[in-house]
Formats: sequence, structure tokens, C-alpha cells
Amino acid sequence: MKRKIRMGLVGGGPGSFIGAVHRIAARLDGQIELVCGAFTRDPVKCKAMAQELYLPEERCYASYKEMIECESKLPAGERMDFVSICTPNHIHAEIALYAMDHGFDVLCEKPMTLTVEEAEALAAKVKETGLVFALMHNYTAYPMVRVAKEMIANGDLGEIRRIMAEYPQGWLADVVTEENKQGSWRTDPATTGISCCMGDIGSHAENLSEFITGLQISELCSNIKNFVPGRSGLDDDGDVLLRFENGAQGVISASQVAIGEENALKIRIYGTKAAIEWRQEDPETLIVKYNDGAARHFRRNWAGCGAKWSRLPAGHPEGFLEGMANIYTDFARAIDARLNGVPYQSEFPTVFDGVRGVKFIHAVVASKGSWVKL
Amino acid sequence: MKRKIRMGLVGGGPGSFIGAVHRIAARLDGQIELVCGAFTRDPVKCKAMAQELYLPEERCYASYKEMIECESKLPAGERMDFVSICTPNHIHAEIALYAMDHGFDVLCEKPMTLTVEEAEALAAKVKETGLVFALMHNYTAYPMVRVAKEMIANGDLGEIRRIMAEYPQGWLADVVTEENKQGSWRTDPATTGISCCMGDIGSHAENLSEFITGLQISELCSNIKNFVPGRSGLDDDGDVLLRFENGAQGVISASQVAIGEENALKIRIYGTKAAIEWRQEDPETLIVKYNDGAARHFRRNWAGCGAKWSRLPAGHPEGFLEGMANIYTDFARAIDARLNGVPYQSEFPTVFDGVRGVKFIHAVVASKGSWVKL
Amino acid sequence: MKRKIRMGLVGGGPGSFIGAVHRIAARLDGQIELVCGAFTRDPVKCKAMAQELYLPEERCYASYKEMIECESKLPAGERMDFVSICTPNHIHAEIALYAMDHGFDVLCEKPMTLTVEEAEALAAKVKETGLVFALMHNYTAYPMVRVAKEMIANGDLGEIRRIMAEYPQGWLADVVTEENKQGSWRTDPATTGISCCMGDIGSHAENLSEFITGLQISELCSNIKNFVPGRSGLDDDGDVLLRFENGAQGVISASQVAIGEENALKIRIYGTKAAIEWRQEDPETLIVKYNDGAARHFRRNWAGCGAKWSRLPAGHPEGFLEGMANIYTDFARAIDARLNGVPYQSEFPTVFDGVRGVKFIHAVVASKGSWVKL
Amino acid sequence: MKRKIRMGLVGGGPGSFIGAVHRIAARLDGQIELVCGAFTRDPVKCKAMAQELYLPEERCYASYKEMIECESKLPAGERMDFVSICTPNHIHAEIALYAMDHGFDVLCEKPMTLTVEEAEALAAKVKETGLVFALMHNYTAYPMVRVAKEMIANGDLGEIRRIMAEYPQGWLADVVTEENKQGSWRTDPATTGISCCMGDIGSHAENLSEFITGLQISELCSNIKNFVPGRSGLDDDGDVLLRFENGAQGVISASQVAIGEENALKIRIYGTKAAIEWRQEDPETLIVKYNDGAARHFRRNWAGCGAKWSRLPAGHPEGFLEGMANIYTDFARAIDARLNGVPYQSEFPTVFDGVRGVKFIHAVVASKGSWVKL
Repeated sequence: MKRKIRMGLVGGGPGSFIGAVHRIAARLDGQIELVCGAFTRDPVKCKAMAQELYLPEERCYASYKEMIECESKLPAGERMDFVSICTPNHIHAEIALYAMDHGFDVLCEKPMTLTVEEAEALAAKVKETGLVFALMHNYTAYPMVRVAKEMIANGDLGEIRRIMAEYPQGWLADVVTEENKQGSWRTDPATTGISCCMGDIGSHAENLSEFITGLQISELCSNIKNFVPGRSGLDDDGDVLLRFENGAQGVISASQVAIGEENALKIRIYGTKAAIEWRQEDPETLIVKYNDGAARHFRRNWAGCGAKWSRLPAGHPEGFLEGMANIYTDFARAIDARLNGVPYQSEFPTVFDGVRGVKFIHAVVASKGSWVKL
Repeated sequence: MKRKIRMGLVGGGPGSFIGAVHRIAARLDGQIELVCGAFTRDPVKCKAMAQELYLPEERCYASYKEMIECESKLPAGERMDFVSICTPNHIHAEIALYAMDHGFDVLCEKPMTLTVEEAEALAAKVKETGLVFALMHNYTAYPMVRVAKEMIANGDLGEIRRIMAEYPQGWLADVVTEENKQGSWRTDPATTGISCCMGDIGSHAENLSEFITGLQISELCSNIKNFVPGRSGLDDDGDVLLRFENGAQGVISASQVAIGEENALKIRIYGTKAAIEWRQEDPETLIVKYNDGAARHFRRNWAGCGAKWSRLPAGHPEGFLEGMANIYTDFARAIDARLNGVPYQSEFPTVFDGVRGVKFIHAVVASKGSWVKL
Repeated sequence: MKRKIRMGLVGGGPGSFIGAVHRIAARLDGQIELVCGAFTRDPVKCKAMAQELYLPEERCYASYKEMIECESKLPAGERMDFVSICTPNHIHAEIALYAMDHGFDVLCEKPMTLTVEEAEALAAKVKETGLVFALMHNYTAYPMVRVAKEMIANGDLGEIRRIMAEYPQGWLADVVTEENKQGSWRTDPATTGISCCMGDIGSHAENLSEFITGLQISELCSNIKNFVPGRSGLDDDGDVLLRFENGAQGVISASQVAIGEENALKIRIYGTKAAIEWRQEDPETLIVKYNDGAARHFRRNWAGCGAKWSRLPAGHPEGFLEGMANIYTDFARAIDARLNGVPYQSEFPTVFDGVRGVKFIHAVVASKGSWVKL
Repeated sequence: MKRKIRMGLVGGGPGSFIGAVHRIAARLDGQIELVCGAFTRDPVKCKAMAQELYLPEERCYASYKEMIECESKLPAGERMDFVSICTPNHIHAEIALYAMDHGFDVLCEKPMTLTVEEAEALAAKVKETGLVFALMHNYTAYPMVRVAKEMIANGDLGEIRRIMAEYPQGWLADVVTEENKQGSWRTDPATTGISCCMGDIGSHAENLSEFITGLQISELCSNIKNFVPGRSGLDDDGDVLLRFENGAQGVISASQVAIGEENALKIRIYGTKAAIEWRQEDPETLIVKYNDGAARHFRRNWAGCGAKWSRLPAGHPEGFLEGMANIYTDFARAIDARLNGVPYQSEFPTVFDGVRGVKFIHAVVASKGSWVKL
């Protein structure tokens, strides 16, 4: 008989933004149930989380290691199926490896790891174990992003010439206070890695550029900077010139000090026949432009557009949670298929996308205004 | 110990749009679990639903009566807490009454009932039993709608003069085929009542106008029409002139034959000091306009705006499901409070909003181009 | 040899908004030259106007009668060709009649006259004299409005079902001071006529609805009101239910107390095949919507759209002055054709549109909440 | 007695886009009259132009030299006051020098010259002669651009950190045919200079960035490319990383092969306190964003914003022609002041802006992916 896929969550303790978001997204389609977690090391808060999440206290573990070890020993019909990692970046690799070594599938936040070596170790482990590994590049799962990818794969844009991706945010325009947990770990090299802005959001722009076009960045030249004190010199703003393998060119701009900007990820791709434009803050619309006629504004699930990735009819706005849920649901199906020995064609980002993202971050930091290969 | 609130769902069988939406919204915040349902009378489909929803077959009942009766007999720690009704309109009243007669709280889709008499019977029953009753006017639960309501209550707009609400849709611009279940029951007077367009969506415009302003429509004059054959003369398009108790005036326009329109509910309210504008298809933005300075575009959860009704930071789009989930979660908290004898101030629409909505629909149909009191 | 067409202007003295606008629009294409005027009765201001407009003082007349009489006596190669009337409404009729009686062509601001009788007298005079008469319904001359008209004439929208025209402004939301000349004469029945809001801007909505669709309003029911004191009860806000000759229906909403609104004329027309939407404040875009595919955003002069009414390439915004200039230029060509005995197919609104507009205003005021024929 | 300022135009023959635009803009405010021109060398077309422009044939000259020489000999009350140059780029310098050597003021299209040496020679000549010289960077004259400049000068944005300017166009996405005169001379190094895209439109982005912020670019690194054959290798697409004198950074992106784009110049400037955003295709709106409250959408001439550069009330769209007319009118006033020995504070771009623009183009081409000083 069909059963729900069981999730163990690492990270997402009190005050975490992304933990609560993961829990909602995972449960959205009703196929995944949260059965345990290593949300926090604080035993008092741990109890509170158990209460809040309707979990037995004994399955709210004090550490990811304890969680993975204890769950391994539970009966097959009870133990978690996969580990979802939404901790700060620096421990992604060790948790993921530990989970896979114990036979658990893994869903991991991005950027995947701090170093390229760690990233490649994860990729090797995925190949070795055959486990399911999904990287939470959730913007790839918005319906209209996938429609865009299909259009380009279908040749609707012709040969791609120009790619412009931008991701301005304003939330780190000032010095971060200690209470701002999000802001604190993201601006600390010990937890976030060698880049703040490009690591956190520039990497989304990179991932989306390559995901939608199917093209790889071959070379880049960056100009990044730290504006706000207290960030150990980590970049909070920058631009990256891009050259793609097919001769296309363009630019990624990202900033966390772009005051007044919310989460304004936007991508434009120009080909020889047509161009597309998509904005994350208006995710239901995909604009396609032509030189020889009217621009077309495609809307999610209007006249069937992107229907297979939709839950609601057109005009009933979907957003960030639905995008993330698309990845969780796809991931749960992949686990289900693996468990049942059935082939499955997943659409979520993989460990190899993770490797590429980490390489991008390192190339951007290494560039220092000169061209480097990617 | 804290527990989840348990839902039994009536309606929402295979092919239902709104049933799946209710299930997602109910589970979004993790406080409600679906434990049973009367999704369909077809026993084969019933089994399929059980499988799809991970429910035991014995709790997928063949009728709402069977569900209510059987659940009543289950132990307190197991049986459903409330009935959620998302059937066609004609059986809302009987299900709701039956549920309350058996001591179950009720959440009901709108329009609440077919007739004013039924609506008032429901209101009387709610008063008599003290049970929790929520009406699913989900648009009232969008964060920026509530921010608008607060602004007006706070006097930011001054005295209200003009209210314009519109709700154009295009999905019924052509004759409905039988496979289109949604379209079929909504255009059939037996299931939908005396009005199609004004009942289904004009009533949202009415509800939102009164909810946001806190004013009541005192008089109206309508011009409604049936354009597409096969609807037994039920209106699929119309406009309603409005006069409000305070002297304000305005208009509601609604259409299901407004070809090319998705779900374009929009409301504008003009006072003596300022005006507001909100569009359901861009629900994260509330525009406030002035004669003596720049218009302000408030955004959900930016600088704390509407934070208490938000799950995500600004710029991470929320939408329809989150709005509906706001009502479900508020409703579950109200049930929890009732069960624990704790006072609770709910924000969801009530049975009295339902009475008003049904009266509105009847007044619109009765008007036939003349002024009638509401 | 080709020569410029010579204009005499009545009205548009110091402080007039519309006078300066007329002068710019008339000269925009370089075919019309202002040669004289009756701008003001004040002899000091008159001299100042002569200086400002580089006109000889003797051709800045103290009254329209003096202007028309004196110019009549000038040699043919010198005297004005036509009279442009941009005075308050109450003297449109007498000036226009006097001008035509002296053989001058006339361009007149709208609404054409205060009464239906005056309007019909003008129409009779135009028929009798064969002179060129243009009514300044400038919104009909925006390129994308004319593209919309062509689309509908071409059947692209199918049979028209719904027409929604709105014209909210906020500039009269407060009591008008005496210095506000615009506001003063427009809110005074002696100069503006029996309606303020519907006469000034509702009539634009009416004209545009009929112009674009080619359909006539057959019946209407209005709800209009005076909100701000000091307007002798003249409406400054209202809505009008519409029924069209072909069975289409809809609504016109207009307000001068819609605080925060600039000049937000907008029209939407829904047919059986497609719908169009146009906003005066974003006049370069015409949106066409469909049920079976993506909306198309046509842009002025992109891929040749509306090129024949354009001066600039797409993306180089044109606006209000260019619209008005389209009428002046067309009008000048019609005069040129008349003078040379050449046939000419003009596109500007005629005296018959003016009659219809005056009838509309009177019907709206007469309705008082009941249905009246138009 | 006051008189109009008299213009002689070089360039703008049949088929020229920018010539007709200059003539309209120059006449818009009624202070300038076109008295002569060297529109074309073709004597037949020359006569046609005389006819079309209502000019005597003898003042439609066969060359700019003839025009300047002949006009010099006319009586003071008759001869042109200034020369307006809207030819291809390669002859700007020689015409401007010749005109100034004959004592005529000059208005010149941008880019000012082909080489830095020519640019500096012009600057020297302006200093030497004291003549009025205006450079047609018309985007600086849009009202909301000037409002933005004032806001920044006023400290409203705090210290500037990030500047993003983009100028995508699609009109050169394909090979240019011979009939496309615009396209032909702009893609030919003999007439356009060493850069096509960056020279024609990148230079607008540069000028606007420096104009609005009052900051200078200190260093840049470009990545430019020629995509379409037949352009002698001239760039038709590119991005330029920027570093400003105060430590701000950012990027200019420009393209003539961005298919589907009209004339989408846009600029965003982020400071420590607020940010601004302006789009040329929606020029009436200036968005100001904050981290601690709602974004404000300022509109031209609403509540007096930018009123001194406006002709029309808010909501009556102004555009490209009005921007250009702002420069012509300002220029005419400067000439008038010079002729009358009166001091005058002009706002139009000067010969020094022209020098800077030419230096920018040369730096971009010289960069070839490395950092160069500007």
C-alpha cells in the first residue's frame, strides 16, 4: 500500500526562516510527512519544537549525527526516508555525506558546499550510492521558468546571444544586529564560505541562466565589493561579465545592499528569433518578445501553459512555496521510485548543479577583475 | 498535549478544483489533518481517493450523512473535529445544519446557501449551538487586504466616497462541455442557485467592499444578463450600481464572459484623504494614492507591513493558497480555543457575512434595473 | 504654392491650461500657424499675449466677434482660415455659429454645446455651409486607440458583449479656490452646463466607447452625485449603466473626486473572440487578450503597428500632445482639401459626435437612477 | 521687440528619422523658427524639402558650408542664429567648428565627435568664442530625470553605492538592408566611428549615470562584441563594469541585438538611504524605494513634482519630443541671453559632456576585457 515519504530535517530551529518554509513546502502536496528533526542543540527549544511540530520528543534530536544514527536503527516502516538539510552552508557537506553513508536520500539547500573539493566528494558519493540527491534551487521549479526552458529547448528563441540575470536585494544594506540570525551567519565566512552576495544569490542567477538556456558559462570576469562593515571583507554587491560556450555573452548583477529591493531576481534571454523575460516577484507571467510583432504575455495555467507544474487555475497566484513544493514532490516521487525499483525521470536540480554552483562562486571570487575560466 | 485539529471534507472528489485546494490550504500550516471525507458517491472513485489521500478506506464515506453519523460514534480522540463543505451550493445548508446538529464545527464555501431563509436558519443554528462557523471568503485573508482594512479603520483614507470593485473572468465565455464539471454545476440553477455570475464572483466583490471599508451597501440597482446559451437564463455578466449607508457610491462589475480575463478581482476605494487599490492577481502590493504627494506602494512584509498574516519575507510571492490557509489556521485556532474554553478573537468571515452575501445575490437578481434596498 | 493653414484662437488667455496645449498641438507638425486670437478681454494681458506669442498686437482682439469681423476683411492671403475654440463650454455654440456664418472653418473643444438644441443648430450649420468642423475628442486620435478601432472593425474581437470605460480624476476632490480658473469655470453651471463630471470627462468615456466599437449606446441608467460643496449641486462623481444597440452592456464610471488619480481614462472591450484594454496614461500599449493563448501587448509603431498615426519609432514615448496634433493636422488637411476642391477622408470627430455627446450628458442627468433612451 | 530664434539645420533630409524629430522639438514651444537648412545634397530632394517645410528654395542649401557662408552674409534681422547638427557622427566636428568660426551658436547631436582630439578641439573653440553650444543628450531633459538629479543632490539617497544602467534595443538584430538609412550609417565605421552600440546608446547610459548622480566613472572594464555580419566588427552588444570616483560600482549593459526591445533605457541608483528607478519607456514615473517603508511612485507634475520642466498636467503623457524640446527651448533662451548680454543659467548638456562621452566610447573599445581609467 502507498505510503507517505518520511522526512528528517536538519536545521530550521526557532527563528529560522528557511526551516519553516521547508516544512510547509514539504507538506504542501501531502506526500511527505515530517517524522523527526535535528532542529537545534538547545534542549529546551528542542522540546518546544516537538510541541510546535506535533512530533514525539524522542525524535527531536540534539544533533544530525544522533538523528541519522538513531533513525537508522528504527524499523523500516517507521524510520525517516530522507534527510533535508537547511543549515548554514558550512555543514552541508558533512551532513549529506553522513546521511548517504547511512543509506538516506538527501535534499540539500544551496550553495551545496563551501569548497569545490567537498562538492566533488558529494557528487562522487551520489554516484557511488545511487541515492537520490536534490539541490534546492527552487527558482528552477517555478512553472513559467520551466516553460521558458522548454521554449528555448524547442528553438523558439533561435540561437542565444545575450543573457542578463540580476538579483538585487536590500536587506543587508545596513550593519546586521546579532538578533538577525539570518543576517549573521550569512555574513560570517565561517558559516557562509568565501562569498556572501555571490554565494547566496549570485549563484541563483548563475544556476537559472544555465538551467533555462541549457548553456554553460565558459568564462567570467567579476567586480565584487564589500560595502558594509563587519563582514570580514565578504562581498555584499557585485557584477560578473559572462561569456557562454556558444558565444553568447551577458552579465550577472547581484547585491544585498540594493536598498529598497526585496527579492528581485530577474532574467532576460535574447536569441536570434525572440527573447524572454521573467521576474521572480511576478512569477506567473513569462514575457516573450519579438521584432516582428506583439510581445506575448504567457500566464501560468492560462490556456494550459505550464499546467503540469501548477496546482491552481490561472489568476489564482502561486508563488515561492509552490515552487519549492514542486521540488519536494518531485524528490519524493524519485525516492518512491527508487524504493520500488521503478525508473523515474526527475526534474529537480542535482548534485552536479551543486558542483557547478560552487565552482561559479570560487571563480567569481578568484577573478578579481580579470577573466577566469569556469 | 497539543494535537492537530481533525477535518472531514464534503465534496472535492476527482476532478474538483476547489477540493484539492481546500486540502492543501488546510494542511499548509500543519495544524489540521484530514481524517475523513465524503468526496464522492462512486465507490470505485472513493477507494481511489482513499489511496491518493493516504486515508483508510473506511473513512471515505459514501455520503455526508454517513460521515457525520459514523464519525459521531468514533472515540473523541479519533473522530473529526469539523466539517469542511466544498460541494456545489445547493447542499451547503443541509450539510452545515446536519453537522452542527451533531456537534461539529463547520467551515463552508460561499455563497453560503441558495436562499435567504436557509442562510438565516444557519445563523440561528450557529447562535444556538455556539459552534465555530467560518465562511470561506478567502480574499479577505490576503495580508494586503487586511492591511487595507486596518488603514481605513484607522482613518487614513478619511471619509469614504467611492468604491469600485470588479471581478472579470473569461472562463465561461463559451458553451460549457459536460466534462467541465466546474462549469456545469455553476451554470445550472439546481446546483448554483438563482444567479451564476453575481452569485459566484459578484458576491466576492460585495463581500470585499464591505469587509475592507466596514460600510454596508444600503441600496443597489443592477443590470445583469445571460449571454451564452444553455444557462437557463442565469446571468453570466453584469454591473451593479451601489449606494452605501454613509453616502458613498460606486459600482460592482462582474463577468464570466470577459474573454481573456483570468481571475481579475480588483478593488479601489476613494476617501477624502487618500485612496487604495488592490488587485488579486498581484496580491502582494497595496497602492495608496494621495492628491498631495507620491503614491505609496506597500508590499507584503516589507518593513513589517502585514507581517502577522505572512509566512514569507517580502519578495517571496505568496498567493491564493496562503490566503485560504490563513482562514483555515484561524478557524483551527478558534476550534482549539472553544475546545479548551479559552476566549479567541477570530478574523475569518462568519455566518453573518454569509447571510449578507445571500441577501446581496437576491437583491441583485430582484433589481432588474431598479433600485432595491439591501 | 503650398502654404500653412492659418489659425485664430478664441480662449486660451493667461492661466489657461488648454489654450497653451492647443497652440503646441496646432504647431507640432508645422502645417498650421497661429495668426490671431481673442485670448482675453483684458487689454493689458492682451498685449502680453501678443508679445509672448510673437503676434502683432492688432491681431490680438478683444472679443471673438471683433476677431471674426476684422479677419473677414483682411486679404485672402493673410486672414485666418479657421477658428479654434477653447473657451468655457457656454459660448462654444455662439462662437462656432458666428465663425461659420463668416465662412470660417471651426475646430471646437468638447462638450460641443450646453444644450441639445444648440448642438443640433451647429450640425445644421455645418451641413448648410459645407465648412470643415472638427470636435476635439483628442483621445480618439491616439494611435493605439485607432488600432483598436481597426481591430474591432476587422472582426478580431467577434461580437462585442461588454464595454467598461472609466475616467477617474482626483483634482476636484477638495473645494476649488478662486485662483484655480480651470476648477472654477468647470464647477459653475453658468459656464460648464448641467453636468460637471459627466460633461467634462464622462463624455470622453462615452465618445471613446462608441468610437472604438462603432456601436451606439441605446439606453442608460445613471447614479451621479455632488460630493464637494460649492458646485451648485453639479455632479462630481458617478456611474452609468449602459446598454448598446447590439445587446452589449457595460458601465461608465467617472469621478473628479477620486483622490490620487491623475487622468486615468481606461477602456476595456470584450467580444466573443478576444478583448482589448487601453489606458490613456500608458497610451503606447494596446493589450489584446484571448481565452486560448497568451495576451498580446501591441506597442505603437513596433512592427508597424499604428505607424500611420506615429511620429516616432516605438519606445520613444508619444503622448497627449501628439494625439491632439493628429486632430489638428488632419483638420488642416481637410481645410486644405476644401480650399482646393479636392476630396478628403478625414478621421477627426465631427459635429455629429458632438451632438451625440451633448445628448449623452443630458440623458445621464435626466436618468436619476432610471433607464432612459439615448 | 522680442523675436523668435532662427535655426538652420544640417542633416535631416528625406528618410531621416532624427531630422523630423529635431524640427518638431525645435518648434514645440514656439520660440524657434526653422529658416534654412542643408538637408540633402540632392537638388531635386532639396526642392521637395523646401516645399514640405514651407521654406524658400534659396535657403535650402546644397551643403553646410554654403549654408553657413550664405547665411553669414544675410542681414542680422534675417539670418539664422544657430546651426543644429543632426548628421551622421563623422562630420559633427567640422560642421560645428565651421559654424562657430562664423559666429553661429551650435546645437549638436551625440556622440559629439569621432575622436577625443576633435572633441577637445570643439571644447577649446567654445571656450575661445563664448558661443552657446548644446549637446543633444535629450534623456537628461525628461522632467523625472531632473527630479532624480535634484533628489540625489539633495542627499535623499545618501551616499551612492550602486549604479545600473541598461539600454537594450532590438532594431539591429538582423542584417541591415540598404534602404535602412539609419541602420546603414550607424553600422559603418566611416560614419559612426569606432563603436556602434556603445557609441550610439551605451553613451546615453554613461551620460545619464553621471548626470543624475553627479559622480564620474573612474575606471571601467568592457566586454563588447559584434554579433551580426556586415558591421566591420563594430560592437552591437556589450556590458561595461564600472567603478566610480566615490567607490560606487555598477554596470552598463547595451545592445542593439536585444530582439524584441524597443528603446528600453533604464537606470537604477542605490544609495545608503534610498534608491531610485527610472525607465525611458515609462518616463512619467520615478520610483523611490526604501528599506523602512513603502516605495513612492512620483509622477510628473503630480503635486508639483517636476512642474518647471512640464507642459501638461499629470496624467497627460509627455514623452520624447517634450524632452528634446526642453533642450531646444533652454538653448534658445541661452542664445537670447547671450545676444542681449544677460546672464543665463542653462541646464542643457555642454561641450564638456560631449568630451566625456567620446572618452567613454574610446575607453570601452580600448578595454577589451581589462580595466582602463576614464
